[in-house]
Amino acid sequence: MEYKNEKLKEEKVFKDPVHRYIHVRDKVIWDVIGAREFQRLRRIRQLGTTYLVFHGAEHSRFHHSLGVYEIVRRIIDDGFQGRPEWNDDERLLTLCAALLHDLGHGPFSHAFENVFDLDHEEFTQAILLGNTEVNEILSRVSEDFPQKVADVIGKTYPDKLVVSLISSQIDADRMDYLQRDAYFTGVSYGHFDMERILRVMRPKEEQAVVTYSGMHAVEDYIMSRYQMYWQVYFHPVSRSAEVILTKILHRAKYLNDTGYVFKHKPTHFSSFFDKTFLLEEYIALDEGVMTTYFQWWMTEEDTILADLSSRFINRKLFQYVDFNPATEYEKVLQLSELFREAGLDPEYYLVSDSSSDLPYDFYRPGEENERLPIFLEMPNGELSELSLQSNIVDAITGKRRTDHKLYFPEDVLLKGKDQNPLYRKILEMLNR
Amino acid sequence: MEYKNEKLKEEKVFKDPVHRYIHVRDKVIWDVIGAREFQRLRRIRQLGTTYLVFHGAEHSRFHHSLGVYEIVRRIIDDGFQGRPEWNDDERLLTLCAALLHDLGHGPFSHAFENVFDLDHEEFTQAILLGNTEVNEILSRVSEDFPQKVADVIGKTYPDKLVVSLISSQIDADRMDYLQRDAYFTGVSYGHFDMERILRVMRPKEEQAVVTYSGMHAVEDYIMSRYQMYWQVYFHPVSRSAEVILTKILHRAKYLNDTGYVFKHKPTHFSSFFDKTFLLEEYIALDEGVMTTYFQWWMTEEDTILADLSSRFINRKLFQYVDFNPATEYEKVLQLSELFREAGLDPEYYLVSDSSSDLPYDFYRPGEENERLPIFLEMPNGELSELSLQSNIVDAITGKRRTDHKLYFPEDVLLKGKDQNPLYRKILEMLNR
Amino acid sequence: MEYKNEKLKEEKVFKDPVHRYIHVRDKVIWDVIGAREFQRLRRIRQLGTTYLVFHGAEHSRFHHSLGVYEIVRRIIDDGFQGRPEWNDDERLLTLCAALLHDLGHGPFSHAFENVFDLDHEEFTQAILLGNTEVNEILSRVSEDFPQKVADVIGKTYPDKLVVSLISSQIDADRMDYLQRDAYFTGVSYGHFDMERILRVMRPKEEQAVVTYSGMHAVEDYIMSRYQMYWQVYFHPVSRSAEVILTKILHRAKYLNDTGYVFKHKPTHFSSFFDKTFLLEEYIALDEGVMTTYFQWWMTEEDTILADLSSRFINRKLFQYVDFNPATEYEKVLQLSELFREAGLDPEYYLVSDSSSDLPYDFYRPGEENERLPIFLEMPNGELSELSLQSNIVDAITGKRRTDHKLYFPEDVLLKGKDQNPLYRKILEMLNR
Amino acid sequence: MEYKNEKLKEEKVFKDPVHRYIHVRDKVIWDVIGAREFQRLRRIRQLGTTYLVFHGAEHSRFHHSLGVYEIVRRIIDDGFQGRPEWNDDERLLTLCAALLHDLGHGPFSHAFENVFDLDHEEFTQAILLGNTEVNEILSRVSEDFPQKVADVIGKTYPDKLVVSLISSQIDADRMDYLQRDAYFTGVSYGHFDMERILRVMRPKEEQAVVTYSGMHAVEDYIMSRYQMYWQVYFHPVSRSAEVILTKILHRAKYLNDTGYVFKHKPTHFSSFFDKTFLLEEYIALDEGVMTTYFQWWMTEEDTILADLSSRFINRKLFQYVDFNPATEYEKVLQLSELFREAGLDPEYYLVSDSSSDLPYDFYRPGEENERLPIFLEMPNGELSELSLQSNIVDAITGKRRTDHKLYFPEDVLLKGKDQNPLYRKILEMLNR
Repeated sequence: MEYKNEKLKEEKVFKDPVHRYIHVRDKVIWDVIGAREFQRLRRIRQLGTTYLVFHGAEHSRFHHSLGVYEIVRRIIDDGFQGRPEWNDDERLLTLCAALLHDLGHGPFSHAFENVFDLDHEEFTQAILLGNTEVNEILSRVSEDFPQKVADVIGKTYPDKLVVSLISSQIDADRMDYLQRDAYFTGVSYGHFDMERILRVMRPKEEQAVVTYSGMHAVEDYIMSRYQMYWQVYFHPVSRSAEVILTKILHRAKYLNDTGYVFKHKPTHFSSFFDKTFLLEEYIALDEGVMTTYFQWWMTEEDTILADLSSRFINRKLFQYVDFNPATEYEKVLQLSELFREAGLDPEYYLVSDSSSDLPYDFYRPGEENERLPIFLEMPNGELSELSLQSNIVDAITGKRRTDHKLYFPEDVLLKGKDQNPLYRKILEMLNR
Repeated sequence: MEYKNEKLKEEKVFKDPVHRYIHVRDKVIWDVIGAREFQRLRRIRQLGTTYLVFHGAEHSRFHHSLGVYEIVRRIIDDGFQGRPEWNDDERLLTLCAALLHDLGHGPFSHAFENVFDLDHEEFTQAILLGNTEVNEILSRVSEDFPQKVADVIGKTYPDKLVVSLISSQIDADRMDYLQRDAYFTGVSYGHFDMERILRVMRPKEEQAVVTYSGMHAVEDYIMSRYQMYWQVYFHPVSRSAEVILTKILHRAKYLNDTGYVFKHKPTHFSSFFDKTFLLEEYIALDEGVMTTYFQWWMTEEDTILADLSSRFINRKLFQYVDFNPATEYEKVLQLSELFREAGLDPEYYLVSDSSSDLPYDFYRPGEENERLPIFLEMPNGELSELSLQSNIVDAITGKRRTDHKLYFPEDVLLKGKDQNPLYRKILEMLNR
Repeated sequence: MEYKNEKLKEEKVFKDPVHRYIHVRDKVIWDVIGAREFQRLRRIRQLGTTYLVFHGAEHSRFHHSLGVYEIVRRIIDDGFQGRPEWNDDERLLTLCAALLHDLGHGPFSHAFENVFDLDHEEFTQAILLGNTEVNEILSRVSEDFPQKVADVIGKTYPDKLVVSLISSQIDADRMDYLQRDAYFTGVSYGHFDMERILRVMRPKEEQAVVTYSGMHAVEDYIMSRYQMYWQVYFHPVSRSAEVILTKILHRAKYLNDTGYVFKHKPTHFSSFFDKTFLLEEYIALDEGVMTTYFQWWMTEEDTILADLSSRFINRKLFQYVDFNPATEYEKVLQLSELFREAGLDPEYYLVSDSSSDLPYDFYRPGEENERLPIFLEMPNGELSELSLQSNIVDAITGKRRTDHKLYFPEDVLLKGKDQNPLYRKILEMLNR
Repeated sequence: MEYKNEKLKEEKVFKDPVHRYIHVRDKVIWDVIGAREFQRLRRIRQLGTTYLVFHGAEHSRFHHSLGVYEIVRRIIDDGFQGRPEWNDDERLLTLCAALLHDLGHGPFSHAFENVFDLDHEEFTQAILLGNTEVNEILSRVSEDFPQKVADVIGKTYPDKLVVSLISSQIDADRMDYLQRDAYFTGVSYGHFDMERILRVMRPKEEQAVVTYSGMHAVEDYIMSRYQMYWQVYFHPVSRSAEVILTKILHRAKYLNDTGYVFKHKPTHFSSFFDKTFLLEEYIALDEGVMTTYFQWWMTEEDTILADLSSRFINRKLFQYVDFNPATEYEKVLQLSELFREAGLDPEYYLVSDSSSDLPYDFYRPGEENERLPIFLEMPNGELSELSLQSNIVDAITGKRRTDHKLYFPEDVLLKGKDQNPLYRKILEMLNR
């Protein structure tokens, strides 16, 4: 039998708290899961620093990836199969793309990519097409199969329906992470009736749509996403940890660039500092490696690096206040000056951070990151964009909500305020 | 106000998926949670290698510790307070002991302690009494408070009732881990009616007992524990990972002892190899550090260390077969010889492992690890040992169940069996 | 000890699937629950005809009432007690009002009250103040206590804070029914973080408010309510059963008024037909009695009464189509005429029904059923109306959504359409 | 297309809180669900009087029946289909038998059948084969189809595998009711990993078996069943209600037999009193009808009937004490005499009741109600009876547990004890 059609003798399952079981029959899927680059996702947390606020959020990208695969498998096997709009030859490709869509994520992706100017999507492509176990397995399906998987994930694959299952405003990725992140954090948001959404999804030429009878389930899903963003993903305390993480990496890079001699040579980071890294070096990095360095750096002579590292490892995070960049720009400049005078480098100790979310949007051609809207299939067979039918969704469509915060080491200021009048002044300006 | 009575201005909560919320009012508790030695528990998984079978089991000892605290808090605040048998002066002590009972756990405790002949309970004591943030905080309650906490955890504290809440056959530790491990693995075992058990718990001089009306809830708890042991804790695949981990550490120690020069100097381990480590060095070790070394060791010249490390990191585990040490001792010797002839060092590649559980036991004075039995308070006020009342519990009382397995690298044998007749012979003997 | 302060020797609990346990310590509460007028609520379903669509919805008003009591008890005992804005002398009164707020509900309330022009709130008052077991028990607290309970439920009690816990836009009533109805129907809507809302509720002079930090939990609650209305409470199929029920009662009344001689004398209904009923007769009516009559009426000679009764009992409901009363008024008149010509009395066989919901509203003085808005306590201590802070809530505030449907016996039309051209014409006009 | 193969155009689903959704594709199944005899099951509670203790237990036999159907559907469609041991021609028959296995249950079955010496299984047969809507539908599949369904339910059908899915020690009936009753009562027992059991079920010639790897899930199921029996099904308070119910019916029959003239003629019961009832009369009885009569009987002149009826309707149940029939026989006789002297007819006011359960049993040929044991399919392919492999199950195999209680009106005795020395004596003898 051809490899692409090979089935396991007995179905294998993974016990999963979110979907109960994840079912695997295809030999290709089984092999990909066993590949070292996929196993590596066990060492990358799904939610970065969020576990420092919601302690349950220690789950890895490994099972999120399995979850996305499982949802796509159910969409195809229980819903699409047999319908004329669905081409079952795309099944294995779609499943592989679902499983591998996050393959290139690095440790604490957001901060890491930000500092080193990287993009995890490029790494996903690089791992799929490079000299890797995953590539070796996919190539056994057909020579061009790794490239096709890369195209689906990269959204350039011609069959838009396939792409839409992995990346759209109601894709398997989002449906899995909302539920999974809700489960592991324990928050009551993030629940919606996925069973129902799966039942009413229909394949169309350009994308998967949802029948009108499922509109309320979709509304509930959009609201879940909205709540998860503001209650979990943008939680100011995990952003505080993220700020510190970013500043640690900045400082280390700065020190390296300026010739500082590390007590413990930052081998794993060197090639990132000077942008000469190999794929293999990227793959070797995981969150355990990063925190191992942070532990070393706690004892570096550079007090900024040592302090920030210690803050991250021992969870002595920055405090925060709201601020409005439009009206308080001057005040931040003043504060910045005061920090400098007080001996606290504002580059590291007075950090502004913004979070911004667009809960749902319809099509805005030409914009960056344009997102296909969600379409409902009306009783008469026509398609109608979701926000035209739902006044709840309409209320938040295209409305970007942004939140600005200033982060700073309140503990230092409070401790020293009796000795240091500048500290007192800073605290006053921050209304603390 | 005295520190020991100080309350937070507003109650603080942690969102917890198992107990919904964990409530903190006491300043001491809040401070202890913030201590670096307690935060370190975030970097130690609750279930060691189990996440390699049940992918959700990535949760850390940090929240299990919070959970045990919360259960004890509820037992005291909602149940015991106001009853004449309960001395509320012990409240803070009991809460601290609950929170800190696992403080000394190291990374992958079981394997680590086994190879380096350590005992995490000693480290718990050492951290409580040593030069640590935790000690500094506890000492502010009273000079002898750290020692008292250590005594409760060490089971030498005179008030046996206090001890029993942390360590008995139905203590807060077990009640939390059964539910928590069930939640994160997603298995359906591990559920029992804790609400009911808490409602029927009564303080007695020597220990907490349960009123007769709660017997069935206790039976259910005992069964949950039994099932969790065999379905989750002793799962043969996580034991396979444990076997490999143990052998990695053995090999590294052996290489160090025999003068092998590591490519990457095993700084973190050196003092453990020669038993000269300081408390600080123990605290610095976590699972991220361990896996960082394993990644380095994947490229060591010693093929055994490199192979085992790679197996752990990339989850290429050993296969296993059941064996009976009583009747198959000869066979294992033969196999061992065959492995050696085939160039596979049986010390590392043919490993026997046993798991054994005593689901419940009544008092057997003089035995090591003697466990207080569970007592029911009968309608007439007398106490009766659980297995006298419950025929289900009686059926498993004192019955040790043991499971023996042989672990070996089946992948190597299968791959080489066409070239190597010894491999074939080994596979035959193993019935593979 | 005074009756009002009397406590049970041991706390009693009811096992409740929604709140786990319902806790009772007060002797008064325990006695009220045992009163026959309260036990009667076991014979009245919480959701009327909804069980004919969501089969799990067979739950009675009995446990909803216990649930509202439990929520109020937790608000007071775990949240308000000890705060200066809360007067703990109101505790027992508030608990009694919570427990008894639905006491006057009759069988299939909506249809029943509609046809006989009754109001269950008047009956609640009547039972509280009449010659009943409940009155006897409440009077033992103090002579004016039954009246005070009636005042709280009737919203005329001077302490508005007490009233707001039972009836406001975020009261214990709504919080219980949303969760309970979601649990028993099995839908995934209806979940929100009540624990959090309870934690952030604060007593104020006029009403309970919610601190700003709990805004998202309140948003989620409002959305849950919105979804439950449209997905469950206004489900067109349960409205179909409601339509039939209403028409059965109409017909029976009409027949009685016009001198029809029933095979089985409608004893229980007689006094309602002529509006001479006694309180005792109202209390004697329950859903079992009603369906017992419907079974008798299935064999009455009046074909309309017989047919409608059989439809209800055997769940042969009416089909429905959407219609717009503004634009399709003429069409309905025509249809009505056609029904008459075809021998189907449109009074009973072509029924329009509307559902309408105002998911949330701010204060509109002078309007009927004016509802206090939900206030947030801002970080600066000021109160702010919810829709000013939440753009999601703002989007649906004051927006009444209405749905109009026409109900008719499609089965009859389809069966007879080959013989009867009028049936065909009707079906065409209805686009069936 | 033949009726038996006819599929609905779109799959229909029922929202079910236990199985999420119940899926129907077969036209026959859809039609049977709509039949009036099946709809009648909505008016019969699944757990009789249990709702008087666990208030959530108001659920009807209607959805339990749907649940059993759904489990069997999943066993067949997801597990058995395609395996050589399974004959897919039996699919529709098995589904119909699953759906209809409880069709003949009457109101408060246990008491009703007991007093009138009836057997609901005979009524199931009678409805299947009589002049009913269900029969009409099944006959359209084939003339002998109703008889075949009756044979499967009656366990006389030749294909024992089919029978075992509906009635064995691990059948769909038990798997549904344990979970459903646990859900609606809210108890934490009753949960087991059904997903896993379904995955490891295998068709064999004589019955469905479970592979060895699923043994622990089966153990858990057996324990769930054991706990549900003693915690829920045999709860002494619901047995108290059952005792009263039985005595009401006894008394009404006795009064009828002795020529008593009822104020309200017991039309619905007359034919049962003299054993002349027709099937149609049996079908017309439901729990609403029964409680309607009980309400009437509350005002009968016969004080026993009036008192017992009032006790049931208003939940003023009997109190109970344990007793040992072997050693306390004399004492009961004495008590009985005392009751008589005190003017309380012991026939109605001193009632002994026993509950007895055999949690699991292996085959005991020749015994009444012999039950097929559960077989495990061992790794070597052989079958092994469960209790041989599981020491937990072994511990309870064949061990009948029995509980005896005496029920009596404690309220009357307490109220009158100051006036009546006999009451005092009775209370003393009962240790109250």
